[in-house]
Amino acid sequence: MGLFRNVAIVGAGMTRFHNRIHAGKTGRDLFVEAVLEAADSVDKGFELREAEAIFIGNYSSDSFEGQGHTAALIADWLGLTPRPSIRVEDACASSGVAINMAALAVASGAYDLVIVGGFEKMTGKETEEVTEILAMAADALYEVPVGFTFPGLYAAIATAYFKRYCSSWEELAAISIKNHRNGALNEKAHFQSDIMDMARRLGERHNMTFKDELEFLRSPLNPFVAYPLRLFDCCPISDGASALIVASSDIAKRYTDTPIYIKGFGQASDTFSLHDREELTELKATRIAASQAYKMAGVSPKDIDVADVHDCFTIAEVLAVEDLGFFPRGQGGKAALEGRTSLDGERPINPDGGLKAKGHPVGATGAAMAYEMFKQLRGEAGRRQVDDAEIGLAQNVGASGATVVVQVYGR
Amino acid sequence: MGLFRNVAIVGAGMTRFHNRIHAGKTGRDLFVEAVLEAADSVDKGFELREAEAIFIGNYSSDSFEGQGHTAALIADWLGLTPRPSIRVEDACASSGVAINMAALAVASGAYDLVIVGGFEKMTGKETEEVTEILAMAADALYEVPVGFTFPGLYAAIATAYFKRYCSSWEELAAISIKNHRNGALNEKAHFQSDIMDMARRLGERHNMTFKDELEFLRSPLNPFVAYPLRLFDCCPISDGASALIVASSDIAKRYTDTPIYIKGFGQASDTFSLHDREELTELKATRIAASQAYKMAGVSPKDIDVADVHDCFTIAEVLAVEDLGFFPRGQGGKAALEGRTSLDGERPINPDGGLKAKGHPVGATGAAMAYEMFKQLRGEAGRRQVDDAEIGLAQNVGASGATVVVQVYGR
Repeated sequence: MGLFRNVAIVGAGMTRFHNRIHAGKTGRDLFVEAVLEAADSVDKGFELREAEAIFIGNYSSDSFEGQGHTAALIADWLGLTPRPSIRVEDACASSGVAINMAALAVASGAYDLVIVGGFEKMTGKETEEVTEILAMAADALYEVPVGFTFPGLYAAIATAYFKRYCSSWEELAAISIKNHRNGALNEKAHFQSDIMDMARRLGERHNMTFKDELEFLRSPLNPFVAYPLRLFDCCPISDGASALIVASSDIAKRYTDTPIYIKGFGQASDTFSLHDREELTELKATRIAASQAYKMAGVSPKDIDVADVHDCFTIAEVLAVEDLGFFPRGQGGKAALEGRTSLDGERPINPDGGLKAKGHPVGATGAAMAYEMFKQLRGEAGRRQVDDAEIGLAQNVGASGATVVVQVYGR
Repeated sequence: MGLFRNVAIVGAGMTRFHNRIHAGKTGRDLFVEAVLEAADSVDKGFELREAEAIFIGNYSSDSFEGQGHTAALIADWLGLTPRPSIRVEDACASSGVAINMAALAVASGAYDLVIVGGFEKMTGKETEEVTEILAMAADALYEVPVGFTFPGLYAAIATAYFKRYCSSWEELAAISIKNHRNGALNEKAHFQSDIMDMARRLGERHNMTFKDELEFLRSPLNPFVAYPLRLFDCCPISDGASALIVASSDIAKRYTDTPIYIKGFGQASDTFSLHDREELTELKATRIAASQAYKMAGVSPKDIDVADVHDCFTIAEVLAVEDLGFFPRGQGGKAALEGRTSLDGERPINPDGGLKAKGHPVGATGAAMAYEMFKQLRGEAGRRQVDDAEIGLAQNVGASGATVVVQVYGR
């Protein structure tokens, strides 16, 4: 059956995602920063104490910071005790799932107004350790012991995709180039440089065409991480937090004249291990979560004006735009190569730079996608604004697709 | 405002809690075992695939087993992909909070029938490591660095309580004796031995009175863990899992003629660190969560026939029975000493043996309390059955009370 009532976002905030600027802070500091910005963004004013509950997506501050039980910690640091505070974890989809939980809680009638968001403070560990901590989201019995970490798992997906569709790495490079160009327009992004900027810093010549950028990405300056994925096919390790103020549709207009409604949402699971999948070149859970979200929202893929998808690796964006029904099978990478998913293309994907350029503090990512849709659909996205964006979508993936959550947003 | 519809438990299962018998298993195995028992317990039959979503309480399988993203893992191991599966973490209150999340999700209209439960596989680590992992639920900046782990935090609470109320350790010992007597009647308990049995094994004489048991607990055979708490004031380290089948009240009777309704539930947070509390001799979050649950259920403390409370340390049971309004301040321990909280007392507390004797696989504890209330209120608790139990309560605590969740159950 359907929800008893609808839910809307009335405020959104996020820290910049970065690997160095948050060095002196802990995860709790970052989350508080994001919540304060979200509160400030509420047009008609909002006091933190109006929030009745807090939902927090976090992957593993236990492992990253030696700090568990973060939900209660954050209630305290926000000055919001004794309100209930709940941590939700579904790997890199943690705050995407937290949004759904917040929506269900408000739809149930229990709460009228809640805070939801996510954070991850990842840079306190060395890259190797971070990779190991992230690999705990894969199967500790059947994937990790044979040497898989996530670059390897997504490399396997890329290889299968290339073989199935006779496509090639250039399609992935096109996604990297596009997302870096978008990130360069986003003041919250980890990398605010396009590939040309980066190449310049590495001593390359000044004026580069797309073809030159591609050439640069093919060079040894962009080494392989896990064949066929190179450095610029992989999202960086970032610190960051994101937060939303979510209200029942009954009261949303008390806070803003332009609430952004969570028109539909879905979540699906899939086989935990990649080797158990019937098909490597799609994420079935994306298809199922999206069909739930489309149905609830009463829309179809063609209605989506702008989308943030989970490009933890460039190949993941290819699968996403196909699984979401934006492009036919085998055409997701070509669409990027042809500019169809660029900011000025027919279907802009990851206008904020995506995980690739914006960064991926894993627990913060799902709510940061919602932040972007909130900005885009209100026409507040500045230099990266997509024209006439009325309906947006966010797709947030846990691990290699064992969890996928999709939301459809609209004015 | 109130919930749009009510929610009931129609089946419940749990593994035995133990420190050795699950040695060859992982957390996923334990959870599947609990869910299968819960499914089998549904009177009119239930197929796993009828479940529309899964909610899992788990504290830190990341740290205990090197396995994150457990929600999706368990959906797979239950054969329930592509259903959404959500992990909830609020320290030792994880599955208590997961029950509230499941209730909200069903009350929202999104789902009619879900699985909720919890698990923890703790014994793969040495005791010292387990203590450190659990200590991550305290403040990593302000409590752990000065040497606090949970036995120390609760010892501080006990010391403050003794001083405030001129009470003494004998009251705590009475709780330990009572809970071990109850545990001896529970085939799922970690320790199925009363103190007399334990003393016998350690070479003490055979027939002991309560006074003898007290004498034994005062001896060096019951050493101090953190003064004034001795070994038998502390719950053991256990492996285990628990699971419930939860349905909307609209359809509950399709599954059983005697559903147990979640008549009320609440959750509250408190200052994260103990040193920030105005008062050490109460858990304010218990009072607040209980008042929410009482109000929703339309009952008062005197209506509660039986309760499971969070006796991670014996002093915690003292605070709980006072904070829940069962006994006046300063009388919680005396009530146990006078037998008023025994199985045949006026207000039986922890008939299943409590965390002390039943065990405390932390993520499983909240849902195991619900399991006990399900059995008690249906008159299926066997040798530990409380007479005429019609309304039950569960109180599940995270850390030193920064999270508390309370449910009121009834027929």
